[in-house]
Amino acid sequence: MSTSNSNDRLFARYFIETAFPLEQAAATMAGEQSTGTFLRVPGETEELREKFAARVESIVEGLPTVEPSLPGSGTPANWDGVRRTAQVTLSWPLHNIGPSLPNLLATVAGNLSELRAFSGLKLLDLTLPPAFLTRYQGPQFGVAGTREVTGVYGRPLIGTIIKPSVGMVPTQTAEQVRVLAEAGVDFIKDDELQSDGPRCPFVERTSAVLAVLREIFDRTGRKVMYAANVTGELDEMLSRHDHLVSHGGTCAMISIHSVGLPAMTAFRKHSQLVIHGHRNGWGMMGRSPALGMSFVAAQKLWRLAGVDHLHVNGLQNKFCESDESVIASARECLTPMFAPPNPGCEIMPVFSSGQSARQAPGTYAAIGTTDLIFAAGGGILGHPMGAAAGVRSLQQAWDAAAAGMALGEYAASHPELAAALATFGA
Amino acid sequence: MSTSNSNDRLFARYFIETAFPLEQAAATMAGEQSTGTFLRVPGETEELREKFAARVESIVEGLPTVEPSLPGSGTPANWDGVRRTAQVTLSWPLHNIGPSLPNLLATVAGNLSELRAFSGLKLLDLTLPPAFLTRYQGPQFGVAGTREVTGVYGRPLIGTIIKPSVGMVPTQTAEQVRVLAEAGVDFIKDDELQSDGPRCPFVERTSAVLAVLREIFDRTGRKVMYAANVTGELDEMLSRHDHLVSHGGTCAMISIHSVGLPAMTAFRKHSQLVIHGHRNGWGMMGRSPALGMSFVAAQKLWRLAGVDHLHVNGLQNKFCESDESVIASARECLTPMFAPPNPGCEIMPVFSSGQSARQAPGTYAAIGTTDLIFAAGGGILGHPMGAAAGVRSLQQAWDAAAAGMALGEYAASHPELAAALATFGA
Repeated sequence: MSTSNSNDRLFARYFIETAFPLEQAAATMAGEQSTGTFLRVPGETEELREKFAARVESIVEGLPTVEPSLPGSGTPANWDGVRRTAQVTLSWPLHNIGPSLPNLLATVAGNLSELRAFSGLKLLDLTLPPAFLTRYQGPQFGVAGTREVTGVYGRPLIGTIIKPSVGMVPTQTAEQVRVLAEAGVDFIKDDELQSDGPRCPFVERTSAVLAVLREIFDRTGRKVMYAANVTGELDEMLSRHDHLVSHGGTCAMISIHSVGLPAMTAFRKHSQLVIHGHRNGWGMMGRSPALGMSFVAAQKLWRLAGVDHLHVNGLQNKFCESDESVIASARECLTPMFAPPNPGCEIMPVFSSGQSARQAPGTYAAIGTTDLIFAAGGGILGHPMGAAAGVRSLQQAWDAAAAGMALGEYAASHPELAAALATFGA
Repeated sequence: MSTSNSNDRLFARYFIETAFPLEQAAATMAGEQSTGTFLRVPGETEELREKFAARVESIVEGLPTVEPSLPGSGTPANWDGVRRTAQVTLSWPLHNIGPSLPNLLATVAGNLSELRAFSGLKLLDLTLPPAFLTRYQGPQFGVAGTREVTGVYGRPLIGTIIKPSVGMVPTQTAEQVRVLAEAGVDFIKDDELQSDGPRCPFVERTSAVLAVLREIFDRTGRKVMYAANVTGELDEMLSRHDHLVSHGGTCAMISIHSVGLPAMTAFRKHSQLVIHGHRNGWGMMGRSPALGMSFVAAQKLWRLAGVDHLHVNGLQNKFCESDESVIASARECLTPMFAPPNPGCEIMPVFSSGQSARQAPGTYAAIGTTDLIFAAGGGILGHPMGAAAGVRSLQQAWDAAAAGMALGEYAASHPELAAALATFGA
C-alpha cells in the first residue's frame, strides 16, 4: 500500500467479492462505516457527509469468481450473474475517531464483514497518519534493542521453545533451559499453552529458569533471552513483569490475541522488558482469503501498541500458511511504518514451526537480512549429534546463506550442518 | 453442549473438515494443544501424557464435502478421496492453565485453525468448570439489574441508536437524544464509530446527553438508559466511567473485540455501570462456517468477564447472519452458564439491525421471553406518525406477541402499529 502517509486521513485496503456493481458495493462500505444508516435520517446533511464521510479512493477489479466464498450474501434485483472481486481502498478523516487503536478497529473492520452485499471481505492493509505515533509508544527495543540486550550481532538470533508445551514442573523446565542454553541458543520461549497453571506456576518457573541463565551468564558472559509467557489478566501481567525484572529477566511473551490492544498498550507503558508478541489464534482471522484481516494490516496495530517481536510462521512450516504470506508479514515487520522524521517501529520477525537448517537460504533470499529470530524445536533437540550441534548447524546454515554459498557446499566443511541436512532434508 | 459441568476439566466442541481419518485428525488437535510437538522429545513421558494431555471425548461424523473450505490443507499419503466433516469434543484438565480466560483462549483456539490437517475448523461451544466463576465476577446487573435501573418490567426495553453514526457535535447529539427520550424509548446507544473523536468529544457529548436525560427524569420519572461508548485505552475507559457515574449515567458501551478480555475484566472490577457489550468485528471470526468461533462459545467468555448486555443481531436483519444463528446466540445469553448453586450469569440479548414491529412475534416465538433489548433506528425515526408513534408501535407489537395475537389483528385497534406494518411490512 502507498507509503506516503497523509497527515489527516487513514486508509484501508480490502479484498471484496460481491454480486453488486463494484462502485455501489464500495459506497455501501463507506456509508456503513461513517455517516450512513439504512434509512436517510434528517441529520445526515450534505455538509456533514462532506466533512465526515468515508471516501472511496480506488477500486481495482480482479478476476470474477463463481461460488460465493461465504454464506448469507445477497444479489441485486437485476443481477447480471457476475460475482466480481476487487481491491477497494477507503479513507476516513482522522477527526472521526482521533488516533485511537480500539476505535480504529471499529472503523476499518467493525460490521463490514457482515454486510449482506459481500460474499467475501477482508482487510488487506492499513496506512495510518503519524499522529498515531504521538499517541502510542511503539516498540521500546525493536531490532537494535534486542541485539543490544542479547549481544548477538551479524546473524539471526537462534531461538527455541520449551517442550513438551505443558506438563513439566518448574525444576524440569529450568533443567531443559540449561541444556538449551548450554547448547548455545540465543533465545528460549515458553510455550503459549504455559503461563501460570497450578502445576507450573509462573513465579516458581521463571525464578528457576532465570537462576540457571544467571549462572550461565556469570560463567560465559552469554545473555540468553528467555521470553517468559506473562499472558493473563492485566494486573497479573504487570506483576509478572516486575517479577521478571527483579530476577534479571529481559523479555516478556504475550499472546496478543488473548489480551487485546488496550492491555498491550498498558503493559508497554509499564514495561522495561522486550515484548515478544505471540500470534496464536491468528488463523481464526487470517486463514481465509475472503474474511478477516491480513497480518500485514494487523501487525501495524501491535507494533504501535509496543511489541518488539512478532511471530510470522516460517517457510515450509507445519501449518497451512503459504511461503508468500509468511514473507510478506516478515518484510512488513522490518519496514518503517511512517515516513521520516518519525521513528520506524521496525521489529524482529520470529520464524518458527518446523524450522531447521534447510530453510535458512530461502528465508535469507526472501528478506535479505539477518535481523530476525529463527526458532527451531526438533531442529535443535532432534539433531543426531546433540542439541549443541543442532544450534551450530543453524548458525552454519545462516552463515552459508549470508555468504551466498549453497548449503551442501558449506556442509562439506561443517559436519553439524551436514548431519542436519541428512536428518531434516536439504 | 452438555450442561453438566465437570469440576476439573474444560470441554470444547469443534466443527472439523479434513481429508485425514477422523480419529487421527482429532488426536492431532489434542496433541497440538497440550503435550505434543512435531517430534517426540525426551520429556514427553506416558505419565506426563496421562496427567496433562487433552482427551478426545467424542467424534460425531457429519456429511462429507468435496471442495476444501479453506486453502493450505494437506491430504494423507494414502488418501481415500473422502473429505470428512465431524463435530469433535476435546477436554483438558483445568490444572493445565487454571481458570484464566486469556490462557483458555490459547488452549481452545490458539494454533488449531492453522493446522494443515484441516480444511475447516471452527470452535462451536465451550463448557467451563465453575472455578471460572470464583475467579471472574460475571455480570454485575444482567437482566434483573437492567430492569431495576431502568424501571422497565414486563416487556422488552425499546432501544434505539444515535444516527448519523458520526458527524454531529455534542449539542446536536443531545437534541436527538431529547427527541428519542421524549418519544418514550427506554434505551439509547452511541454508535460504535463514535467514542471520543475531536469533533464530538466524549466528555462534552455525554455531559450534554446526561443533562437532557436528567431533566426528563425530573419531569417524568422515566430513567432512560444511555449506553455511552467508552471504548478506548483502559485508562481512558476508566476515566470515562467515572465521568458517567458523576453525571448520573447508568451504562457504558464497550466494543468487545476492540478492547479484549483483560481490559473488560479490569473495567468490570472498577465498574458501577451496566456494561453494554457491542460485538462489532464479530463477522471476522463468526461469519465463516468453517473457521473462527461461534458466538455461542464466545459470549460465555464475555459474560464471565462481566458484560450485562450483548448484541446478537436480529431476525431478518440487514446483515448476513441467519435467523437460526441469531436465536441460538440470544437463547444462550439467557441460559445459566453453570449448574446451581452458582449464579447463572444470564444477560440481556440486544436485538438490532433493521428491526421494526414486524419482527416482534417471531422473536418472541423463538425465545419465549421479553427479557431483551429490542433496538430500532429507522423503525422509530422513520415511523410515518413520528418517533413517539414509532416507539408505541414497537411496544404494541410486543404486547401482541406476548398475548399471542396476530399483529394484523392487534393493529386494528392500535393505529401506531397499523402504520408501522404498512410502512415496514407485516
